[in-house]
Amino acid sequence: MKIGIFGYGNLGRGVEAALRQNPDMEIVGVFTRRDPASVKTVTGIPVYSAALAEDFSTEIDVMILCGGSASDLPEMTPMLAKHFNVVDSFDTHARIPEHFENVERSAMTTAHTALISAGWDPGLFSLARLYMGTVLPEGKDYTFWGRGVSQGHSDAIRRIPGVKDARQYTVPVPSALESVRRGEDPDLSVRQKHTRECYVVAEEGADREQIAKQIREMPNYFADYDTTVTFITEEEMKRDHAELPHGGQVIRSGSTGEGGKHRHVMEFSLKLDSNPEFTASVLVACARAVGRMNARGVYGCKTLFDVAPADLSPLSPEEMRKKLL
Amino acid sequence: MKIGIFGYGNLGRGVEAALRQNPDMEIVGVFTRRDPASVKTVTGIPVYSAALAEDFSTEIDVMILCGGSASDLPEMTPMLAKHFNVVDSFDTHARIPEHFENVERSAMTTAHTALISAGWDPGLFSLARLYMGTVLPEGKDYTFWGRGVSQGHSDAIRRIPGVKDARQYTVPVPSALESVRRGEDPDLSVRQKHTRECYVVAEEGADREQIAKQIREMPNYFADYDTTVTFITEEEMKRDHAELPHGGQVIRSGSTGEGGKHRHVMEFSLKLDSNPEFTASVLVACARAVGRMNARGVYGCKTLFDVAPADLSPLSPEEMRKKLL
Repeated sequence: MKIGIFGYGNLGRGVEAALRQNPDMEIVGVFTRRDPASVKTVTGIPVYSAALAEDFSTEIDVMILCGGSASDLPEMTPMLAKHFNVVDSFDTHARIPEHFENVERSAMTTAHTALISAGWDPGLFSLARLYMGTVLPEGKDYTFWGRGVSQGHSDAIRRIPGVKDARQYTVPVPSALESVRRGEDPDLSVRQKHTRECYVVAEEGADREQIAKQIREMPNYFADYDTTVTFITEEEMKRDHAELPHGGQVIRSGSTGEGGKHRHVMEFSLKLDSNPEFTASVLVACARAVGRMNARGVYGCKTLFDVAPADLSPLSPEEMRKKLL
Repeated sequence: MKIGIFGYGNLGRGVEAALRQNPDMEIVGVFTRRDPASVKTVTGIPVYSAALAEDFSTEIDVMILCGGSASDLPEMTPMLAKHFNVVDSFDTHARIPEHFENVERSAMTTAHTALISAGWDPGLFSLARLYMGTVLPEGKDYTFWGRGVSQGHSDAIRRIPGVKDARQYTVPVPSALESVRRGEDPDLSVRQKHTRECYVVAEEGADREQIAKQIREMPNYFADYDTTVTFITEEEMKRDHAELPHGGQVIRSGSTGEGGKHRHVMEFSLKLDSNPEFTASVLVACARAVGRMNARGVYGCKTLFDVAPADLSPLSPEEMRKKLL
């Protein structure tokens, strides 16, 4: 299967690395909106201008889109789905229905297959919520994120005047997590589920008190959470916060039997050293499924909910049944 | 969707209870090889003789088979797949390829759809192994079972002369579990992964030493494990060991990126108060998918690997994307 990578930041580099772990996939090239001469890929694969991507439409089975959800993907995915089978990691939950409609229209008119919102949340966590909720209809589920770096929250801090750099960790509250794991079905406010830890490098002479106050009072991002702000040096930032770890868990507890007397707790958890590399690995598995579905004449916009698990795997059905079932 | 229940033991009763949690499903009746007059269902649904099942072939959309894997299902599933869409929980891992072939032949000749080996292992745990292995191809996975009652091992003890009743718990070794969770990829022997706890009611005057020795030395079942044998009274058995709890976890750790420098740990775990009721809940969700697949003209033998997750859920695609993605 021949794969193109559209966009070459952390996620694009992750896809490049993940493709090398999947011998049934071949990289055609990276497509960038920057000057291709200025982009050097980790493994030396060719770099082309994004403007020329269409010329590759017959050479590429699936294009993996590695743009951001805020401004790139809402335009990029519908546009590229006219020329390619595509996979994206669109993760603005509230705008998924709208994105789905746009991509569906575009892919259907040209008989392409597009899989949106792949990754771990949305993605594997969504699958966990679906499987768990279906198996235990009388129950309640919880999603916790972290401990991990939220890039959106880090960016929000960086926009505050006087801030040179920042890293924000989302951290589940241990007692909340334990209560959910014990199947107690607690009612938890936003504040009771997660805390936010901010590490900030201030500009010289900046008013630190004022920065900390602005962070803690920022609506949507921090005001509803217990937020700690720690000022560190640039050296400490580089040394201790260079990585992008993340993770979390989906937990559902529910009951079965006469009068619901039997309780069950299901949990899916991830502990990731690198959020973009793990997301990239999911995108690559999805690209395999998208290529196969398109070859079978399944067109339009899909999500992981629509993908038979077997389509993600390089194993044959016989091997799968023998080794994994 | 109209559902029949074939076989009425712990699993059949679990299916009866699970169907009541799924308002889109309707129970047609229970089919038993015993005298129907002798079987009283928990919720008063009608009981018919297994011999008359074929008469219901146009009235039932999916028949859920609740027999045992040792002797019932290998004959029952291929036979009933000639007349019905069926779901079974066949769990003899080594014989799955053979069972698959038999059911496939039978279902294909009459345009039925059969889903075999549904439950949690095989079933949800198989799905976890597939998703995890596909996303992290360079890694290693481990399945732990327990703490929970193994019915096969309990039965094996009951066959020893002098044993009146027995219950065997499979228990993961905590240090092994922790090592795997830390992503250390340990090499673990059978003995290092699980211990076996046996609770035995001996006949009056039986040689307890001899019973304990026979248990501990039983090949396949106990000889390869650290096994403890505790003799208890009938009252203690009734009071402390009446339930059938189980559970376990699938854990995969793997690496990504340049030189595999980033590690990731994925875990799916279950803590179940009632093994048969939880298995029944999975069977019911699978019945929904089987009915839908058959209506779309997808025939033959399937496993959960072949089922798009959306087909399991009562939610519409729009609801799913909005609420779960």
